Amino acid sequence: MQKGCMYCEENETLQGMMMPLTELPMSKVYLFRDQTYYGRCVVAYKKHADELFELSDEDRNAFMKDVAAVAGAISRATGAEKINLGMYGDKVKHVHFHVVPKQIGGPGYGGTFEMSCNPPKHLSEKGYQEIIEKIKSFCMEG
Amino acid sequence: MQKGCMYCEENETLQGMMMPLTELPMSKVYLFRDQTYYGRCVVAYKKHADELFELSDEDRNAFMKDVAAVAGAISRATGAEKINLGMYGDKVKHVHFHVVPKQIGGPGYGGTFEMSCNPPKHLSEKGYQEIIEKIKSFCMEG
Repeated sequence: MQKGCMYCEENETLQGMMMPLTELPMSKVYLFRDQTYYGRCVVAYKKHADELFELSDEDRNAFMKDVAAVAGAISRATGAEKINLGMYGDKVKHVHFHVVPKQIGGPGYGGTFEMSCNPPKHLSEKGYQEIIEKIKSFCMEG
Repeated sequence: MQKGCMYCEENETLQGMMMPLTELPMSKVYLFRDQTYYGRCVVAYKKHADELFELSDEDRNAFMKDVAAVAGAISRATGAEKINLGMYGDKVKHVHFHVVPKQIGGPGYGGTFEMSCNPPKHLSEKGYQEIIEKIKSFCMEG
């Protein structure tokens, strides 16, 4: 737990950007509120660490198992052509991956992905719940 | 080995973008020729797979151990503030991570990183060899 870290504190800044989707053995999973890339999630490490390479083999293996499970679940839930993974966090260093599905002909296909899209694409509450439940159910199937 | 895949074929397209740095148990490591982000590398999975989530636990663990080793080596070689990781490959699906060091006040600090910078920043042959040897030596120290 690091003071001032939005992932540790799960504060309003975090809640403004993402909503809880599920918890996995080594991570908390969030749906990104901006759904420009439909199905986009964040997988945040359960403890605080600045860099992936600081984790023990055991912790990194467990965390990456969660990341892979979420990537697979998003792939199945959205039928995406490719799943992108991004870990940046120059200023928000808590270990976390953006897990971003890409569709052929969809936003950013063939390149990277935008951290923040302008304008963002928000869903209805029902729309958010629908994709959350779908991804969650594929996560649980493993 | 997939036909037409530049990582499998290690063809001219690949060689134009990056140069061999070292081999690790589950990956080939390249230095990106565009050194806008000084120390930037690519860690490519030794076999062909489209998605990280398709790998067995054992293979994913071994591959991510390599990725973490390279990230740690780049961090030590460059004194970077943060190491970014990006896996995209919408069209070049071979599993590989871009490992990109960020410096406070340097290019892209606080955001993502550009896949291709315009203009790219090339080093002299001596400059390339210098950073390659430095990263390699930290990789071997583990």
